[in-house]
Amino acid sequence: MSILIRGGTVVNADREFQADVLCDGGKILAVGEQLEAPAGAEIIDAAGLYVMPGGIDPHTHMQLPFMGTVTQDDFFSGTAAGLAGGTTSIIDFVIPDPQQSLMEAFHLWRGWAEKSAADYSFHVAVTWWDDSVHADMGTLVREHGVNSFKHFMAYKNAIMADDEILVKSFSRALELGAMPTVHAENGELVYLLQQRLLQEGKAGPDAHPLSRPPMVEGEAAQRAIAIANVLNTPLYVVHVSCAESLGAITRARASGQRVFGEVLAGHLTINDSVYQHPEFAQAAGHVMSPPFRSSSHQQALWQGLQGGNLHTTATDHCTFCAEQKAMGKDNFTKIPNGCGGIEERMMVLWDAGVNTGRLTPSEFVKVTSANCAQIFNIYPRKGVIAAGADADIVLWDAEGSKTLSVKTQFSKGDFNVFEGRTVKGIPTHTISGGQLVFKEGDLRAVAGHGKYIQRPPFSAMFGALSKMHNAI
Amino acid sequence: MSILIRGGTVVNADREFQADVLCDGGKILAVGEQLEAPAGAEIIDAAGLYVMPGGIDPHTHMQLPFMGTVTQDDFFSGTAAGLAGGTTSIIDFVIPDPQQSLMEAFHLWRGWAEKSAADYSFHVAVTWWDDSVHADMGTLVREHGVNSFKHFMAYKNAIMADDEILVKSFSRALELGAMPTVHAENGELVYLLQQRLLQEGKAGPDAHPLSRPPMVEGEAAQRAIAIANVLNTPLYVVHVSCAESLGAITRARASGQRVFGEVLAGHLTINDSVYQHPEFAQAAGHVMSPPFRSSSHQQALWQGLQGGNLHTTATDHCTFCAEQKAMGKDNFTKIPNGCGGIEERMMVLWDAGVNTGRLTPSEFVKVTSANCAQIFNIYPRKGVIAAGADADIVLWDAEGSKTLSVKTQFSKGDFNVFEGRTVKGIPTHTISGGQLVFKEGDLRAVAGHGKYIQRPPFSAMFGALSKMHNAI
Amino acid sequence: MSILIRGGTVVNADREFQADVLCDGGKILAVGEQLEAPAGAEIIDAAGLYVMPGGIDPHTHMQLPFMGTVTQDDFFSGTAAGLAGGTTSIIDFVIPDPQQSLMEAFHLWRGWAEKSAADYSFHVAVTWWDDSVHADMGTLVREHGVNSFKHFMAYKNAIMADDEILVKSFSRALELGAMPTVHAENGELVYLLQQRLLQEGKAGPDAHPLSRPPMVEGEAAQRAIAIANVLNTPLYVVHVSCAESLGAITRARASGQRVFGEVLAGHLTINDSVYQHPEFAQAAGHVMSPPFRSSSHQQALWQGLQGGNLHTTATDHCTFCAEQKAMGKDNFTKIPNGCGGIEERMMVLWDAGVNTGRLTPSEFVKVTSANCAQIFNIYPRKGVIAAGADADIVLWDAEGSKTLSVKTQFSKGDFNVFEGRTVKGIPTHTISGGQLVFKEGDLRAVAGHGKYIQRPPFSAMFGALSKMHNAI
Amino acid sequence: MSILIRGGTVVNADREFQADVLCDGGKILAVGEQLEAPAGAEIIDAAGLYVMPGGIDPHTHMQLPFMGTVTQDDFFSGTAAGLAGGTTSIIDFVIPDPQQSLMEAFHLWRGWAEKSAADYSFHVAVTWWDDSVHADMGTLVREHGVNSFKHFMAYKNAIMADDEILVKSFSRALELGAMPTVHAENGELVYLLQQRLLQEGKAGPDAHPLSRPPMVEGEAAQRAIAIANVLNTPLYVVHVSCAESLGAITRARASGQRVFGEVLAGHLTINDSVYQHPEFAQAAGHVMSPPFRSSSHQQALWQGLQGGNLHTTATDHCTFCAEQKAMGKDNFTKIPNGCGGIEERMMVLWDAGVNTGRLTPSEFVKVTSANCAQIFNIYPRKGVIAAGADADIVLWDAEGSKTLSVKTQFSKGDFNVFEGRTVKGIPTHTISGGQLVFKEGDLRAVAGHGKYIQRPPFSAMFGALSKMHNAI
Ligand SMILES: [Zn+2]
Ligand SMILES: [Zn+2]
Ligand SMILES: [Zn+2]
Ligand SMILES: [Zn+2]
Ligand SMILES: [Zn+2]
Ligand SMILES: [Zn+2]
Ligand SMILES: [Zn+2]
Ligand SMILES: [Zn+2]
Repeated sequence: MSILIRGGTVVNADREFQADVLCDGGKILAVGEQLEAPAGAEIIDAAGLYVMPGGIDPHTHMQLPFMGTVTQDDFFSGTAAGLAGGTTSIIDFVIPDPQQSLMEAFHLWRGWAEKSAADYSFHVAVTWWDDSVHADMGTLVREHGVNSFKHFMAYKNAIMADDEILVKSFSRALELGAMPTVHAENGELVYLLQQRLLQEGKAGPDAHPLSRPPMVEGEAAQRAIAIANVLNTPLYVVHVSCAESLGAITRARASGQRVFGEVLAGHLTINDSVYQHPEFAQAAGHVMSPPFRSSSHQQALWQGLQGGNLHTTATDHCTFCAEQKAMGKDNFTKIPNGCGGIEERMMVLWDAGVNTGRLTPSEFVKVTSANCAQIFNIYPRKGVIAAGADADIVLWDAEGSKTLSVKTQFSKGDFNVFEGRTVKGIPTHTISGGQLVFKEGDLRAVAGHGKYIQRPPFSAMFGALSKMHNAI
Repeated sequence: MSILIRGGTVVNADREFQADVLCDGGKILAVGEQLEAPAGAEIIDAAGLYVMPGGIDPHTHMQLPFMGTVTQDDFFSGTAAGLAGGTTSIIDFVIPDPQQSLMEAFHLWRGWAEKSAADYSFHVAVTWWDDSVHADMGTLVREHGVNSFKHFMAYKNAIMADDEILVKSFSRALELGAMPTVHAENGELVYLLQQRLLQEGKAGPDAHPLSRPPMVEGEAAQRAIAIANVLNTPLYVVHVSCAESLGAITRARASGQRVFGEVLAGHLTINDSVYQHPEFAQAAGHVMSPPFRSSSHQQALWQGLQGGNLHTTATDHCTFCAEQKAMGKDNFTKIPNGCGGIEERMMVLWDAGVNTGRLTPSEFVKVTSANCAQIFNIYPRKGVIAAGADADIVLWDAEGSKTLSVKTQFSKGDFNVFEGRTVKGIPTHTISGGQLVFKEGDLRAVAGHGKYIQRPPFSAMFGALSKMHNAI
Repeated sequence: MSILIRGGTVVNADREFQADVLCDGGKILAVGEQLEAPAGAEIIDAAGLYVMPGGIDPHTHMQLPFMGTVTQDDFFSGTAAGLAGGTTSIIDFVIPDPQQSLMEAFHLWRGWAEKSAADYSFHVAVTWWDDSVHADMGTLVREHGVNSFKHFMAYKNAIMADDEILVKSFSRALELGAMPTVHAENGELVYLLQQRLLQEGKAGPDAHPLSRPPMVEGEAAQRAIAIANVLNTPLYVVHVSCAESLGAITRARASGQRVFGEVLAGHLTINDSVYQHPEFAQAAGHVMSPPFRSSSHQQALWQGLQGGNLHTTATDHCTFCAEQKAMGKDNFTKIPNGCGGIEERMMVLWDAGVNTGRLTPSEFVKVTSANCAQIFNIYPRKGVIAAGADADIVLWDAEGSKTLSVKTQFSKGDFNVFEGRTVKGIPTHTISGGQLVFKEGDLRAVAGHGKYIQRPPFSAMFGALSKMHNAI
Repeated sequence: MSILIRGGTVVNADREFQADVLCDGGKILAVGEQLEAPAGAEIIDAAGLYVMPGGIDPHTHMQLPFMGTVTQDDFFSGTAAGLAGGTTSIIDFVIPDPQQSLMEAFHLWRGWAEKSAADYSFHVAVTWWDDSVHADMGTLVREHGVNSFKHFMAYKNAIMADDEILVKSFSRALELGAMPTVHAENGELVYLLQQRLLQEGKAGPDAHPLSRPPMVEGEAAQRAIAIANVLNTPLYVVHVSCAESLGAITRARASGQRVFGEVLAGHLTINDSVYQHPEFAQAAGHVMSPPFRSSSHQQALWQGLQGGNLHTTATDHCTFCAEQKAMGKDNFTKIPNGCGGIEERMMVLWDAGVNTGRLTPSEFVKVTSANCAQIFNIYPRKGVIAAGADADIVLWDAEGSKTLSVKTQFSKGDFNVFEGRTVKGIPTHTISGGQLVFKEGDLRAVAGHGKYIQRPPFSAMFGALSKMHNAI
């Protein structure tokens, strides 16, 4: 069935313009003035609305296994919640256990994701190293549409990648045309600080941010950037949360290095006072890594986004319920790390970004979809309203408003980090793969409707990198 | 007559793709695969070629009056030379004498420009201040398609704008939705250094760069940026030539300020050793302001372009002949300032930028046309290959090469700052307003074919600025 | 009469050590272990106390004429209050009206200062320019012990020095071996913002900081630094109050430029919330320029002091009473600018600097006396406890504490910006010129006891500057 | 026997002044005008000469064992060469093999050093970790006068300290009041680059700098600084050779962190063109780590020294002969790393630093002795000309000149990295421990004359650090 979106203001990364948008067969067929509606087309009146590419959340953890349990949102409920918030694609993570085959883990996650209501793809984590990892990276890129690999610089004694793994994996990614990405925190320092805090009897959730101060993140970001610089690879830093890591990215970019930064809606808008809440459940509900930071860091992150030193916005959506969080009741290091946000990301960003003049609507599109699509090489299939693109579209009412709450959210779980926040600027309709899946509060997500997104290697930047004078 | 460009690789700022391009009536009618040729259409075989938006040079001085003479290239020969190099639009400067009416000067320049072979527009300089200037700025924006004003921070006792003029004019521009631009050099310091050098008997062209050291430019850039910051206006800094002014822009952008930087092809590729040439004509032929800099500055400028802190590339095309340059034979401060480059800009940039891996082809399009079109609010009429855009197109042979020389240039004048440089990557065809005006070395420019480009005020960034929390 | 200070811990800029200190004839005769007391010597038991060089406040305005009135503290009461706080020398300012002879103004101020209770010297302001100013600068340096000149970059239509004056005066200072200093605020911006605020009906003291945002200061600091850089002169920036101007200094110093920064005790410890006080007298009591800033700037200033990018601490002591402040009751631009602090500076700095671990005691001596003495070339006469130095000494009880208040201050006037602050670390004895002038709360200042401090030109740094490769 | 130095200009870190200097019993007895010569005193006429504290070289490797051989200069010849150059103290390194007891290694080195002609001390390297290392660090500090520990971040598979060792050792050093120091290069990257270069057939000494690009050093410096920041320890970075690591130090210092930087005379004055020499012996003679860098890095290092972001100058004196260097004839990674310089350091620094105006004579004293003495807590025993200090003195003829060469050097070995350089400014007399050991070219060094320098822990900065608000 075709859909004609009539009379809206299309917003792409490069401009805004008045146009109708016609979708059919899962694709955008035409974008233009006064388009004629095909017979049987559903017509959506978009007068007064913005028509934007559906959001892409490049950082989610749906259905993540954790100590015998699993996060609240599975691939269906999580992607459905995304649709309710205008997000039509996610890139989730395959995280092999050390010694586990990457291919095995990949297929496991692929299986879990089949129930997704929206399109999805996977970064694959490199958590250990041997020849099979080297080989599997090749297989994943060449045969399975993976073009990015994740490295955790924290989580000592678990999935931490030390410098040896980093240099080997970054080198391998480069030859495959794939993007190395990092969770940047110095695992040794985190470990030491955790031990000290526990020894001092600081076992509550308020000790969590003390165990991961900004410099711990700044160090790791700087290190990963230096490694990428020496090896002449690009780099993508996930969840940049503080001035220190942003500073490292900013300096690298100013010297011409191809480094990209992701920032979470939460880190932009929530400060570290949440860890002082007297109730464990409230404080623990905000435990994630990197932690929320003081307000001056938020100001820095917004500046990074405005100045083009941060490129994508994500959520690290990873929802644990109160019972799961309670596993760390007596020891903050045992609180499962994670918060939600996939449903609220775009509203929070519009409200705090566009309404304040920090971002134009086109810049909003850049940081919610277009940049991500370009960095991970799925543009213009995703990230733009143009003929030929996937029909992933959100209609946006800049005057509409809503109060965010766990009580009204579609996401599962019993906690909402944006609880009580009233935002102005909300999605009215979401179209995913050509289907109207969300309409004015009515969510019509269908399990299994989402498709796996093949992401080809060797985006344009690799061509340029290969010409660069290599260090050696 | 229609033109079908067949089989090329279209390069836009956001991506490269295989497509045919059909032009008619001065516009691009369609971009797509396997387009059918209309009857009578001229078909250009673009196999193996890039198809890119025609270049925009946002900084030229054609037909500039100078002490009773005029520069070598008038609006016809200058724009024609541009077409031969793939540049299809210019933004030139209206420069009123102090006390001269802005409207009077504007109409004078408009008259001179009627013979242009390619599209043109004008920044208007604010060289003095009274109520009439305030009023004329409004008239120019509202009735004449001007959306940018120029301020010379150098040239004391002539057209220099002091801080009082800057704050008044920037404020006025903001309320009109127009962009303030600056030539950033501290005029007092230049004046003092010139007097000192002459007193010390340093009167030759090698004294020219000594009278305008990088810090002189850095200071002025920083000052203009600070004023724009306090007044909450955007700012465009012309011909950024050194690390100091680039640093000021980079810091401002990293803090979220909407500052834009222009860099000249010459400053990117020519160093200050040219002023040491023993022949006056050679050294004087390179006298322009800011002067060419040492190699470390060139490296910094490239990094600025790569990292997105510089946005446009221009030429400051302003050609004086040997006889004119000789007016400063005994006193370097009397050498008319100016060099050419409109014909060579895109080739030089491709060769030194794309061939080295500093820029992808899409980034090349950004810095040669798309960014300029967006900043000066003529996008998507200019700066993109898309249906509806002006048919200003250059076909590019990345394998072709050419040795640049005054002997073979179309530009008038007797000097070429790129003399002897062999570049790889050259234009094979240029289409301007739907006409094939340059074909494999054959220039078919027509006087008066160029149209005046109306530039509307209030680009998207002004909407965001108006929402920003203003300093007061 | 001689004084023997027995059993204390001497603190100099380079180290702390146990020693007795013997003074006679206004000088320190000996510093050593177990010194023998001369007959008739007064013996001070310094067990448990620090023995430090008396403070030097390089920025005061005693007895400043203002619209027919004069500030509350004259040279006697002001210097006496300094003695009560451990400060034994000041450098005040001679501020000629435009067109007034520098020599005439200098002699006027010298006359006023004869009643000083402590040693004093003068920076002379260059507020206008002609040949007589050029000549008088020479006379002041060569015959009157002046080695620094002040330039106000703010106060348009009054004493503002524009770029032309700056370049001429800095050049002149260099050839005389004297230090140029600046009050860094862009006068044009301040003027424009003041007019705007008044037009918008914002006439209260809360508008004062809005008329002088940090960037206004940062711009001017950067400009003065650039001018000094180009002219190869040193530079001293008075009352650095914000991250922007500190940043400019920090960058210049990192590139090897000889730039020095002064910070006020008030700017380090008081934030801009004071301007929100509902009572005019309270808010107006804090009106000074640059204004107090938000807390993040204070943090930056402390870092600047710790890292060696700020060198001296001062007060800008300039006390107006409530009646005088009330002149701006209906128009904040008419509120006389100025606050006190000479009495409290060292206590506030010790409490907020040494007690917090930001500074060692030796670093405290650096920033309260030694650095100032070196920069203004009166070291080791001032700024060190050593044989041969002036007997200007403060004994310090690191365990003593005091609550600062207008009720108990020696300084005249009816306002104290540190009102109610309890500090730990207080002076117990002050010796000035060999006299015990303050003892455990008992102030024994004598009018006319202070001597004029001749400051010779050409400190060591001028020797180095003369060898530097000059820009031209 | 006593020595009276008459009529010279004493240069200390804080000032220059005319004074005689009287030495006896290994100490300076008096500094003053017109001192009377004791009976039998040797009188040195210092008219026209500077009288400065003897240099301290905080980074030497005398008599270093290497693959069954040992470096050319043993503790006698090396310290004697230092005396000929005006350097009267060294701090060398005890480098235990992994698993070797720190105490055992310490005593080994102490034994070797007994023949020293000048005073000496030892940094002890932490090259591995277990409880005995933890305990031995305590013993060394409390019983053996060690107050600094060294960590090699490079040399994988040998003495490299990974992050786990760094965090443990830095923490331990803090509680002992000792300074952590680092050789900052990322060992994983060096290893990878070495392997790649060898695989590509790049086995000559010109590959050496390619295996250790500046970013490899910058990364490690930044990492060590971040660890020190989080653990609230001071940090001393040895042999800073490039803009990247200097930048990390500069940023840390600007934020108030107590980080110190050492720079080698060689890195300041020799560029990386030396590795292009066609003769193996010449190129290999310059192989050390970090390698010599391009000229822009040298400019940055000078700026760091001028601006106070680098504090000490050293040599990393470690001399291998041609035969030893030839061990890497076919594989650059086997060339023993090291160059000389202890004899030339002060001359090279004076010539390139003081003669150019980069440094005043007092600043020269700061960076050749006083800062080092303060950082390593042996001030004022060392680093100042003052009564009570050790009689370690150099007399300096600013007008004298000399051409440096292996042919005329006192240092052993067959290579001089400063070969052929003519310097202006040379030592005429060196007094070490009260003995005139060098006089106008005549070296009278005595084996065993040097004493071990006990360095007490808990310098003043530790007091401040303990008050700082600790991260946790
Ligand atoms: Zn993470
Ligand atoms: Zn995650
Ligand atoms: Zn210009
Ligand atoms: Zn121009
Ligand atoms: Zn002031
Ligand atoms: Zn003042
Ligand atoms: Zn080393
Ligand atoms: Zn070493």
